[in-house]
Amino acid sequence: MHFPFLTEARAPLTQEIETVNQHGERSLVSIPAERPLTVYVDKRELVTLMTLGARPEWLVLGYLRNQRLVRKVDEVESITVDWDVGSAAVKTRSGIADIAKRTEHRVVTTGCGQGSLFGGLMDELDAVTLPEASITQSQLYAIVNAIRLQESVYKSAGSVHGCAYFRGQDMLLFVEDVGRHNAIDTIAGWMWMHGAAMPAPDALAAPVFYTTGRLTSEMVIKSAQMGVPIVVSRSGITQMGHAIAKQLGLCVIGRATNRHFLCYSAPQRLQLQPELAGPRLRAVA
Amino acid sequence: MHFPFLTEARAPLTQEIETVNQHGERSLVSIPAERPLTVYVDKRELVTLMTLGARPEWLVLGYLRNQRLVRKVDEVESITVDWDVGSAAVKTRSGIADIAKRTEHRVVTTGCGQGSLFGGLMDELDAVTLPEASITQSQLYAIVNAIRLQESVYKSAGSVHGCAYFRGQDMLLFVEDVGRHNAIDTIAGWMWMHGAAMPAPDALAAPVFYTTGRLTSEMVIKSAQMGVPIVVSRSGITQMGHAIAKQLGLCVIGRATNRHFLCYSAPQRLQLQPELAGPRLRAVA
Repeated sequence: MHFPFLTEARAPLTQEIETVNQHGERSLVSIPAERPLTVYVDKRELVTLMTLGARPEWLVLGYLRNQRLVRKVDEVESITVDWDVGSAAVKTRSGIADIAKRTEHRVVTTGCGQGSLFGGLMDELDAVTLPEASITQSQLYAIVNAIRLQESVYKSAGSVHGCAYFRGQDMLLFVEDVGRHNAIDTIAGWMWMHGAAMPAPDALAAPVFYTTGRLTSEMVIKSAQMGVPIVVSRSGITQMGHAIAKQLGLCVIGRATNRHFLCYSAPQRLQLQPELAGPRLRAVA
Repeated sequence: MHFPFLTEARAPLTQEIETVNQHGERSLVSIPAERPLTVYVDKRELVTLMTLGARPEWLVLGYLRNQRLVRKVDEVESITVDWDVGSAAVKTRSGIADIAKRTEHRVVTTGCGQGSLFGGLMDELDAVTLPEASITQSQLYAIVNAIRLQESVYKSAGSVHGCAYFRGQDMLLFVEDVGRHNAIDTIAGWMWMHGAAMPAPDALAAPVFYTTGRLTSEMVIKSAQMGVPIVVSRSGITQMGHAIAKQLGLCVIGRATNRHFLCYSAPQRLQLQPELAGPRLRAVA
C-alpha cells in the first residue's frame, strides 16, 4: 500500500477584528478564517472549496473520496497545498477515468456547508452494508462530554462546525471547519491515511461520528459511505436524512446535550440505560 | 415589464417521526422536510437543490438571479414546479446565452447550505455600489423582536434556517429553508416579483436582511448583489465575510439577541442609542 505524500500547509485559523457593541463600546473579538482552496486534479481544475484551512490535505483527500472520484487511497500520489495561491494540486498515479463526465451532474445540497455532491451518489446506497455495532447510553454520554471538554476554534471564535470520529467512547480525531461537510470530508481523508479501510469494528468499539451540525441527507449518506453506523449530533434531523438512515439501519441520535437526546432511527444500536438519565420520569417502554 | 408565470406548488413542510429519548420513552416529534428539486432551464438540466419546499418558484427564480444566469426578471417566461417528480421547469423568453460555459466553474461554498456559486462572482463585486442607508439601534431591536415573535417551522420542528427582508423595522417577507442560501435566494426571487429592482431606499426605511445563519463570504456577497447594505444575524461572521463587508461598506451586525449585538463592519450605518442597551457599562466611545 502506497500512501500519498501530503504537505502540511498551515495558516492562522482565527483573526481579531474590532467590533462595536450595544453600549457603543469597541472591542476586539476573534473570528474564524475562511479561505478559498482551488483543487486541481492532474492540473485540471475541479472545484473551489471554502475552508477554515486547518487540515487542507486531508480535506482534499476526503473530498475526492466522498465524491467517489478516487476509490482507493493509493490512487493518489501526492497533494500539495499552497496557501499563497490558495491551491491544492492533486497528482494521481494513473489519472481519474472519465473525470469530466463524472463531475457533470451537480447536486446542491442543503446541509450546512460544502454542498456540491456530484450526482449518482444515491444510486450506490443500495450497495451499502453497515457493520453490526452498537453503543451504550453510557458511551453516548461520554462522547457528548468529550466534545464539551474539547478545546476548539468554536470556543474562541464561534461560527465553525465541529466533527469527530470515535471508536466506542474514544475520540480519535476532532476537526473543525466553516462548513460541516468539509469537517466530515477531512475525517474521511484522515481515515484513509490511518489504516486505509475501516478496521472491522468489535462490539465494544463501534465507529461513531459526532457532528455539531444538522443531520441532512448528505451527512447521513456520507456516514453510510464511510461505513459508520452511528451518528450523534447536538442538532436535529431533516426528513430525508431520517428516511435514508431508517432505510440503511443507521442509528442517528440528535439533540444530544448533557444527558438529553433523541434517537431518531435504528434504536436497536443504542443500548438504553435509562437509570443514567437522572431523576424524572421513569421509562415507559 | 412582463412578470413570469409561476405555479404555486405546495407540499407538507414537516413530518412526525417516532423517537426514543434518554428515559427510553417513545414520542412523536416534528422534523422539517428536505426534498430534491431538479431545475431544468429550457429543458437543460442545471442543478438539483435540496429544499424545504415552502416557496420553490421564488427559490428557483432567486437562484437564477443570484447565480447571475438571468439578468432581468422578464427574461423568464414561466417556472413550473411539480413535486411529484421533484422538478422545476424554467422557460426563458429567448434562452440563456453561453449557459454551458457560464456554469462550468464550480465554487463549493462554506456557508450553511446551498453552496454552489458559479464562478466569477467575486469579479463583479467591484461594480457594486450600495445605497446610503442606516438604521437606528431602536430599529435593530425591533427587527430582532419581530423575528422572535415570528411563527415558524423552526419553532415546531427545528433544523431550518430563517431569513427575512425588512425595510426599516417593517418585515416584508420571512422565509425558511433547510439551507440558508435557499432562504436568501427565495427572498431574491420574491424581490424580483414584487417591484423588479429595489426601490430607492430613503433614510427611514433602509433595506435590511436578517438571517439566522452564519455570515460567510457567500451571504455577504449575495446581500451586496441584491443592493442590501445592512445584514443582521444571531450568529457570527467569518474572516472572508468580514473582509468583503468592510471593503463594500456593508454593515454586518451579528450575535443579535435580545438587546445584545456586535457590529462587525460599517458602524457608520448603525445609529447607536446606548441608552437603550439597558443598565450596565456606559459607553466608552
